[in-house]
Amino acid sequence: MTRVLVINGPNLDLLGKREKDVYGTETIDQINEELKRIAKEENVELEFFQSNHEGDIVDKIGETDAMGLMINPAAYTHTSVAIRDALSAKDVPSVEVHLSNIYAREEFRHKSLIAPVVSGQISGFGKDSYSLGLKALIKLINA
Amino acid sequence: MTRVLVINGPNLDLLGKREKDVYGTETIDQINEELKRIAKEENVELEFFQSNHEGDIVDKIGETDAMGLMINPAAYTHTSVAIRDALSAKDVPSVEVHLSNIYAREEFRHKSLIAPVVSGQISGFGKDSYSLGLKALIKLINA
Amino acid sequence: MTRVLVINGPNLDLLGKREKDVYGTETIDQINEELKRIAKEENVELEFFQSNHEGDIVDKIGETDAMGLMINPAAYTHTSVAIRDALSAKDVPSVEVHLSNIYAREEFRHKSLIAPVVSGQISGFGKDSYSLGLKALIKLINA
Amino acid sequence: MTRVLVINGPNLDLLGKREKDVYGTETIDQINEELKRIAKEENVELEFFQSNHEGDIVDKIGETDAMGLMINPAAYTHTSVAIRDALSAKDVPSVEVHLSNIYAREEFRHKSLIAPVVSGQISGFGKDSYSLGLKALIKLINA
Amino acid sequence: MTRVLVINGPNLDLLGKREKDVYGTETIDQINEELKRIAKEENVELEFFQSNHEGDIVDKIGETDAMGLMINPAAYTHTSVAIRDALSAKDVPSVEVHLSNIYAREEFRHKSLIAPVVSGQISGFGKDSYSLGLKALIKLINA
Amino acid sequence: MTRVLVINGPNLDLLGKREKDVYGTETIDQINEELKRIAKEENVELEFFQSNHEGDIVDKIGETDAMGLMINPAAYTHTSVAIRDALSAKDVPSVEVHLSNIYAREEFRHKSLIAPVVSGQISGFGKDSYSLGLKALIKLINA
Amino acid sequence: MTRVLVINGPNLDLLGKREKDVYGTETIDQINEELKRIAKEENVELEFFQSNHEGDIVDKIGETDAMGLMINPAAYTHTSVAIRDALSAKDVPSVEVHLSNIYAREEFRHKSLIAPVVSGQISGFGKDSYSLGLKALIKLINA
Amino acid sequence: MTRVLVINGPNLDLLGKREKDVYGTETIDQINEELKRIAKEENVELEFFQSNHEGDIVDKIGETDAMGLMINPAAYTHTSVAIRDALSAKDVPSVEVHLSNIYAREEFRHKSLIAPVVSGQISGFGKDSYSLGLKALIKLINA
Amino acid sequence: MTRVLVINGPNLDLLGKREKDVYGTETIDQINEELKRIAKEENVELEFFQSNHEGDIVDKIGETDAMGLMINPAAYTHTSVAIRDALSAKDVPSVEVHLSNIYAREEFRHKSLIAPVVSGQISGFGKDSYSLGLKALIKLINA
Amino acid sequence: MTRVLVINGPNLDLLGKREKDVYGTETIDQINEELKRIAKEENVELEFFQSNHEGDIVDKIGETDAMGLMINPAAYTHTSVAIRDALSAKDVPSVEVHLSNIYAREEFRHKSLIAPVVSGQISGFGKDSYSLGLKALIKLINA
Amino acid sequence: MTRVLVINGPNLDLLGKREKDVYGTETIDQINEELKRIAKEENVELEFFQSNHEGDIVDKIGETDAMGLMINPAAYTHTSVAIRDALSAKDVPSVEVHLSNIYAREEFRHKSLIAPVVSGQISGFGKDSYSLGLKALIKLINA
Amino acid sequence: MTRVLVINGPNLDLLGKREKDVYGTETIDQINEELKRIAKEENVELEFFQSNHEGDIVDKIGETDAMGLMINPAAYTHTSVAIRDALSAKDVPSVEVHLSNIYAREEFRHKSLIAPVVSGQISGFGKDSYSLGLKALIKLINA
Repeated sequence: MTRVLVINGPNLDLLGKREKDVYGTETIDQINEELKRIAKEENVELEFFQSNHEGDIVDKIGETDAMGLMINPAAYTHTSVAIRDALSAKDVPSVEVHLSNIYAREEFRHKSLIAPVVSGQISGFGKDSYSLGLKALIKLINA
Repeated sequence: MTRVLVINGPNLDLLGKREKDVYGTETIDQINEELKRIAKEENVELEFFQSNHEGDIVDKIGETDAMGLMINPAAYTHTSVAIRDALSAKDVPSVEVHLSNIYAREEFRHKSLIAPVVSGQISGFGKDSYSLGLKALIKLINA
Repeated sequence: MTRVLVINGPNLDLLGKREKDVYGTETIDQINEELKRIAKEENVELEFFQSNHEGDIVDKIGETDAMGLMINPAAYTHTSVAIRDALSAKDVPSVEVHLSNIYAREEFRHKSLIAPVVSGQISGFGKDSYSLGLKALIKLINA
Repeated sequence: MTRVLVINGPNLDLLGKREKDVYGTETIDQINEELKRIAKEENVELEFFQSNHEGDIVDKIGETDAMGLMINPAAYTHTSVAIRDALSAKDVPSVEVHLSNIYAREEFRHKSLIAPVVSGQISGFGKDSYSLGLKALIKLINA
Repeated sequence: MTRVLVINGPNLDLLGKREKDVYGTETIDQINEELKRIAKEENVELEFFQSNHEGDIVDKIGETDAMGLMINPAAYTHTSVAIRDALSAKDVPSVEVHLSNIYAREEFRHKSLIAPVVSGQISGFGKDSYSLGLKALIKLINA
Repeated sequence: MTRVLVINGPNLDLLGKREKDVYGTETIDQINEELKRIAKEENVELEFFQSNHEGDIVDKIGETDAMGLMINPAAYTHTSVAIRDALSAKDVPSVEVHLSNIYAREEFRHKSLIAPVVSGQISGFGKDSYSLGLKALIKLINA
Repeated sequence: MTRVLVINGPNLDLLGKREKDVYGTETIDQINEELKRIAKEENVELEFFQSNHEGDIVDKIGETDAMGLMINPAAYTHTSVAIRDALSAKDVPSVEVHLSNIYAREEFRHKSLIAPVVSGQISGFGKDSYSLGLKALIKLINA
Repeated sequence: MTRVLVINGPNLDLLGKREKDVYGTETIDQINEELKRIAKEENVELEFFQSNHEGDIVDKIGETDAMGLMINPAAYTHTSVAIRDALSAKDVPSVEVHLSNIYAREEFRHKSLIAPVVSGQISGFGKDSYSLGLKALIKLINA
Repeated sequence: MTRVLVINGPNLDLLGKREKDVYGTETIDQINEELKRIAKEENVELEFFQSNHEGDIVDKIGETDAMGLMINPAAYTHTSVAIRDALSAKDVPSVEVHLSNIYAREEFRHKSLIAPVVSGQISGFGKDSYSLGLKALIKLINA
Repeated sequence: MTRVLVINGPNLDLLGKREKDVYGTETIDQINEELKRIAKEENVELEFFQSNHEGDIVDKIGETDAMGLMINPAAYTHTSVAIRDALSAKDVPSVEVHLSNIYAREEFRHKSLIAPVVSGQISGFGKDSYSLGLKALIKLINA
Repeated sequence: MTRVLVINGPNLDLLGKREKDVYGTETIDQINEELKRIAKEENVELEFFQSNHEGDIVDKIGETDAMGLMINPAAYTHTSVAIRDALSAKDVPSVEVHLSNIYAREEFRHKSLIAPVVSGQISGFGKDSYSLGLKALIKLINA
Repeated sequence: MTRVLVINGPNLDLLGKREKDVYGTETIDQINEELKRIAKEENVELEFFQSNHEGDIVDKIGETDAMGLMINPAAYTHTSVAIRDALSAKDVPSVEVHLSNIYAREEFRHKSLIAPVVSGQISGFGKDSYSLGLKALIKLINA
């Protein structure tokens, strides 16, 4: 059975609890429920992982034997060469997702260190970025 | 009935005919067929437009009364303030799609002038960028 | 009789129809009426030209035998070396006008490729930028 | 009765006396005469102020109760945050004028620190920059 | 008895009179009253100096025999090497204060030419920046 | 009772033990003692937190229900978007403090990623940066 | 028989009619005559194409089945990613020519977006740039 | 007896398991075996530490009482001011090593934040970078 | 009789009184005495002018009818376009002098806004910069 | 009789012996033979000069009385102001040639210090760059 | 027998004679003696070459048939594309060494033009940089 | 007896023979005659050295036992770290001279790599730069 790892980076544990005007009222758990629904349809097994720690995310990527990765690196998008290197060392498809349109925000958020090493990037569709990303990832795994 | 305009920028008429190793063997018509299939399912009407002319694309965006726009601006992604302004002046949802991962290519392709004014961006999933983009757009229109 | 060519660049055909909060409710036709009134007073013949196509504007500048040019290059202000070269090759006075104060907008709008080759620039007075520009141009032609 | 303050920055006291090939032979007094003529027609009261001192110009802007300001900041265009802040703190319309086309001169003259905080800018029409500026300012005051 | 010089730069004479939404309704005199109260408690003598003139501030710093300096250089923060050199030449402690958080404003306000030559900087606490600054300065003088 | 969280970033556990010539001989515990003294006077409850881990600091900021935050982000000042985002998501006042004058040190220390999202910043007064910061924070909380 | 397409970009239709001191008095037709003479000698068939429209040039490059391309992109040299992509997608040799030495002109003309995707570049020999370019191109086609 | 700490940064736990074409087939354990052999010869005691966590590395550097440090900071080479500060605060010799030649890789890997605060750097000799580094470090300790 | 104006910019009134280790113990008066001695030998009349005010220096340059100017612009070297414009408008020879070698100091002192408009520059010879400058200026006047 | 000097810069003595995949198998002697053949046809006398020494090339350019110069500056293209100055001081036509397309190589090879001072540049046609260059040069000499 | 060429760049002939506080008291001959000792042990033949001339170093690299190269390019590290190209054209291993830690010196010394084309780089261990470099080079030759 | 070395860099052997409008008609020999006259008066022995070779100049500076150096590095001013290092290693006073005002020429001539390591710089006085420089140097030697 196809297994997929979903990684959420720093501060995403607070989704739906803080800055609701920016990120909406949906929590990460609610997003995960939607992903589980899709996964079931597609006959895919999901593992969820959230951490505020760059090192934890690197550890997780190094250890996992999932066949595909979906990651919202949040703040680490712009600062983490370590996560980039971890992703780059994997031989499986990977998708980078963002809730907000990072290109419509502060200048320093326009540059993703992660984007050059993933298969593709989806940015700006709120929680739908995740659903679209999962579907794209499953297609890539099955390709 | 929901109407959506799909715009393809310069050189995309040659898709599947040139540089097949980079962009695959599928033609723009084949991609459009897949989009029509999705549109039918979603009960959406599609209009397709391809041009190598920046001005034609600006004209089209200005004239259309579609309820949503999906655009692969291709080379104009990086050089057209005119298309950006045209999109910015519309009150409808819009999605920017790219076949290849533009962040894994030459430095000058990392900067999109279009991204800050669209709802979201999908990059790097080949023809699936279009399918995902259309689904995302329909969700935005219905939201 | 003195003949003057008035050129409006991309998206200006939509003036007064879109983004009214930014650009006001007056249409390009209404602005042109005001210019005609001034032209009549000054005994000047006006030709109006609007296009979303960079190439059309270059064509027009190349062909015209007007004795002076007033241009609002809109988005092409910041990207068109071709229009710059076309203007630079003319031996007649020319004036660049902008409805909004381009120096109070996004960083990329602060740089005009056109400004170094025109006689002068007027920016930020709404439709009055056109009236002032026409008066300035007529003075330059008669100087 | 509408009162307008006209400010001329550093070295403009020498206008018409030095570098006549660049700035013409007309003195600041002659320009002021022309402005007075327009003011009379428009039933506007003018106050003239010239100083080579950044601080004097800041003082003057702070003290004045004119209903509109026209300023040729000359060299301070490119270096004075103090004048920018003074203008920005005023609630009245303001116009920046330049005799020469500053965008056709040395690179460092292309950047105006003043432009983002005034209503509009007129550059490159010699003494007519002042006449056009005054007319534009009166329109803004009366708007 | 410890003597301290408090310098306020350009446009601060208008504090509480203009742009109240940004800088509050308190005037420079009211801030000074608060500083006098603290000075009395600490048995310190205060001298107040405000000028819109860079040269006046340089003069003042050169002449004073105060044992410590507190300065809000306002606009000159970002442009005055002369004030920097004047402060750098003094052997007494000095504190730079700002009403607003200069790092949360326009890009050009993020760079202080003064900061590298003062003892410390306090930014963003409104009038409390002054009270905190005076207390810090007195500690430095007594250290 | 008002509760305040005091966060110290990487290497600050070694304060007073290493590089005494730069940072002085006082330890973080001694600084905390002084802060407790002030807190007692002000009837405020303090919680202290030190970590070398960016993720721990993000965790802590996310979890705390303190009514105000004082943070010396140390090295993370210049590299952590994650801490910036965590602070930005809080609705409570926050103060950034630095022992040394970061603007008088290496170029890369002049840029704080944290400063734009805190209420204010205090830099360069040694341990007094903390005392001043706490007092400022309490004022902000009570405002 | 070998077929070659010769493309001239914006404003080159005016060659020999405007700015004669810069570009000489020879028209594009006269240059073409010389090229025809060479083509005849070399037993090569020539097609000529001039347009001020970026999109037309992209169209033409996409449609042509010539075995080699010579292009003077003029202003589009510095701004057109679309023409670059069109050339890059062709499998035939291509030569970029310029009448003037673009490296001895304004800074912004020193950078060619086209040069990295053509076989070679010839710049600065006036009309001889074309003759040399055609000879070079024929050699490349026959190699 | 001389004690030396050997630190390996993020993703190095996977050495010899991933991307073997880039980094070779030797694992970090095998490299450590070679280092132990050298240490034995030189009568030096080694401690090994690997972590994907920036904070762990900072902790370790802060706690250790080794007389010398060898570090391959991997991805943190380019992003960690915290590790730089930790190393800078130590009074013992330190050596930075890299398996690959970081100057022959992506642009962002050419800049080491660590290099300015270590004794020396060795880059590009594969596992021999470690052996050479250890020998250099022992010489520095004994100097 | 040849008349020469010697201008000293901000903080130079304190020469020999502050920062003696950097600028020496000689005062501006003592330097002037030496200049008078040379002037007498050369049969030249000297006028001395020192001011901390940019505007005063601009006034002075505008008013003077000296046949040559020697200026140490001090801090204004790096910030004053107004003094540059004033010097540029004069038709007489001018010399820029600096006590210290400005190219061996902070980065921001390496750029002189004044240098491009004076005849020549002398930097780094302490008070001898003035003597050499005066001699050079007299030669230029007599040339 | 027309005399032409052909200069080859550093490492070109090894042409055809090293890196044959990049530069081809033809030696500099073989290229020279082809040039001699052309020269004979054109009744031109050739002198050949190759050196790895910047100074030798400067010497040669200074001494020669050839009526035209063709130079492949190789590595010195990007670093030698001395060769630029030597060429700039000559009153004879000069042509810069490159075997490879320097604009399709590393970023630092895109900038030629030599190009702004020669008549024209030919880049990317292998040994044909030389033949074309010689023909262009002879035309320039005879013009 | 393995032959190795050791190249020392400009000013290294003066090692141990000038700036002893920076580079130590050991001369290049003393370093060479140590290298000879290692070479003897390793059964390697050494050739030594020192020159202040970029061209001489390029000549030497072009001519040598050594099986490996060790180079301290000194000042040419930062300016010589010619030496880079010469090294790049060799098929043998090469090592770049520096006495001092170039990354702890002036900004312009942080960038090596040589590093991207050598096998590895060793910097900062004084004369031991050479010994380590030779050992590394022999390993690379024997690999 | 005081001995001084006068070094002239590349292309200065041609002074007075080429580009007379820029550099005047005086040859380097005539300048040297004037320097000899001054030297005789001052009882100083002069040695003259001119070379187009960077390496020769480095050799000469390394070998000389002169008590002071005057150098016009010409083109090497902007490119030679080797000459900078050679000068920096000398313990004697040194003066950099330029015939023309390098700050009024092309942008790349505004930056001197030499200036930070010499005692002082004189630029823009034609041959008088040399006379002034020699006098300044003798003063420095005797100081």
